[in-house]
Amino acid sequence: MRRLCMFFLATILSVTGVSYAGQDTLTQISTIDALMSGIYDGETTLQALKEKGDFGLGTFNTLDGEMVLLGGEFFRINGKGAVERPDLKTKTPFAAVTFFEADRIVPLKKGLDFKALVAATDKMLPTANMFYAIRITGSFSVVKTRSVPAQQKPYRPLSEVVKTQPVFTLNNVRGEIVGFRCPPYVKGVNVPGYHLHFITADRSAGGHVLDFSVDTAVLEVDDTSEFTVVIPSDKAFLEADLTPDREKELKAVEK
Amino acid sequence: MRRLCMFFLATILSVTGVSYAGQDTLTQISTIDALMSGIYDGETTLQALKEKGDFGLGTFNTLDGEMVLLGGEFFRINGKGAVERPDLKTKTPFAAVTFFEADRIVPLKKGLDFKALVAATDKMLPTANMFYAIRITGSFSVVKTRSVPAQQKPYRPLSEVVKTQPVFTLNNVRGEIVGFRCPPYVKGVNVPGYHLHFITADRSAGGHVLDFSVDTAVLEVDDTSEFTVVIPSDKAFLEADLTPDREKELKAVEK
Repeated sequence: MRRLCMFFLATILSVTGVSYAGQDTLTQISTIDALMSGIYDGETTLQALKEKGDFGLGTFNTLDGEMVLLGGEFFRINGKGAVERPDLKTKTPFAAVTFFEADRIVPLKKGLDFKALVAATDKMLPTANMFYAIRITGSFSVVKTRSVPAQQKPYRPLSEVVKTQPVFTLNNVRGEIVGFRCPPYVKGVNVPGYHLHFITADRSAGGHVLDFSVDTAVLEVDDTSEFTVVIPSDKAFLEADLTPDREKELKAVEK
Repeated sequence: MRRLCMFFLATILSVTGVSYAGQDTLTQISTIDALMSGIYDGETTLQALKEKGDFGLGTFNTLDGEMVLLGGEFFRINGKGAVERPDLKTKTPFAAVTFFEADRIVPLKKGLDFKALVAATDKMLPTANMFYAIRITGSFSVVKTRSVPAQQKPYRPLSEVVKTQPVFTLNNVRGEIVGFRCPPYVKGVNVPGYHLHFITADRSAGGHVLDFSVDTAVLEVDDTSEFTVVIPSDKAFLEADLTPDREKELKAVEK
C-alpha cells in the first residue's frame, strides 16, 4: 500500500503540468440527508440540471437507478445494471454537477484500488477543505458497482433500500469513473469524502462504485471552489425533518 | 408567550399579502466552523462581496467588528460599539449576503423579544428547510448587542474571544435588524437558526443581536432557495482542520 502510494506520488510529480485555479461551481440539487430520509421525488428536470453542469452524478425520481452525467449526456444505470438514456423531462431528487475542466492530470498505477486512490489523492490535493470533481478514464481489471431499482411509496429510507441492492462485478472493462470529493464540513448536505459512479466505455453497464482495480487509467481532478445548493420546493422536502444526524447511516449506505 | 404568538399569527393572517417565490441566492464566504476555529483573515474584499448581495452580515479581517450590509452599504460596528464605514478594499473572513426582496411583510407586536420572534416566525414560515433573509425595521424599547474588537495573532478561537466581548444595551432606538434564518443541515457551514445583526437608523450604534424588545416594527422575510458557499483560497483556510463538530461551541458563541 505504502509502495503503491509512493509510486503514485512520484508519477504525479513527474507528469502533472496542468494546474490553474478553476473558479468552478459544484451545483447540487437537494441534500444527501433528504435523500437518506426517503425523499426520492424532486422537481428538477435533467433539462434544468444541464444548465448547471456537463459532468456529475445523482439519481432519478423514485430512486430509479444511478445517474452519470458525462460530456453533457445523461445515463441511467438501472436496477438491473443496464444503461438507459433518460429523457430530459425526467426529474431528479438529488444530483451534483459541475462543468468539468481538469486542473490536475495524473496517471494511475496498475492495481490501484478505491482505498489506495483515496489515500494517494488525499496526499496529492492541496487541501481537504475544497470540492474536487474527479474523473478516472481507462481500463480496469474489475469495477464493483451497485445500483438501485425504482421504489414505490411509501418510500423506505435509503439505508433500508441498499440492504438488498443489486451488486455488479464488471471484469476487464474500459470506462469512466465520475464523481466528487467533498470536504468534511458538508456533512448533512453532501457526502464528505469520495462519491463515485461508473459507466463503461460502450455504455452498457455501470453503477455506484464500491471498489475497483485499475489496469491503465488517468485521474483528472477539477478543483472547485464554489458550492451551490438548490433547495427543492416540493412538499416532501419542505416537510422533512432534516435535524437528525445521519452520519453513521450515510457511512453504511456509501459502503 | 403563547398569547404573544397567537396575536402575532393573527396579525400575519390579516396583513400578509406579499408572497412570491424568491429565486434568491444566499452567498456565503467561508464557513462558520472556519471562523470558530480562529480563521479571522480572508481574501474577499467588500467590493467583491457587493456583487453577491446588497444585504447581509459578517465580520472583517482580524475579526474587527460586526458587519452590516444594508441597501448595498457596508457598516462596521467596532469593538467599542461605534459605527464606521469600511473601505471597499477591506477584506472579510466570513460573510453571508443576498439581494433582499421581501416575500413576506408582517407587523410585529409591541414587546416581542428574540425568543418570541423565533417561535412566531418558525410557525409562520412554510418550512425549516429553506434559507430566509430577515429584516426588521422599526423602533425598539431595547436592543442588546455585542461586538468584537480586532484580534492579534496568534488568533484564539471565537469561543474564547466572545468570553470578554463588549456588550451594549441600546434603549429606545430606531433601526434595522439584518440577518438570516438557516436550516438545520447547514451545521458546520453556517449558523442553523437565527443570526441577526443590528444598526441604528442614525448609524451610530449596533452589533450582533443578543436580544431586543419591539416597540413598533415590521418584519420582512425574503425566501431564499439557493445557497452558495465561496471557499477561501488562503493558506489558513486551506490548512484548517475542519473535521471537529463545533455545534456546542457555536451555541455558546451565538448566545
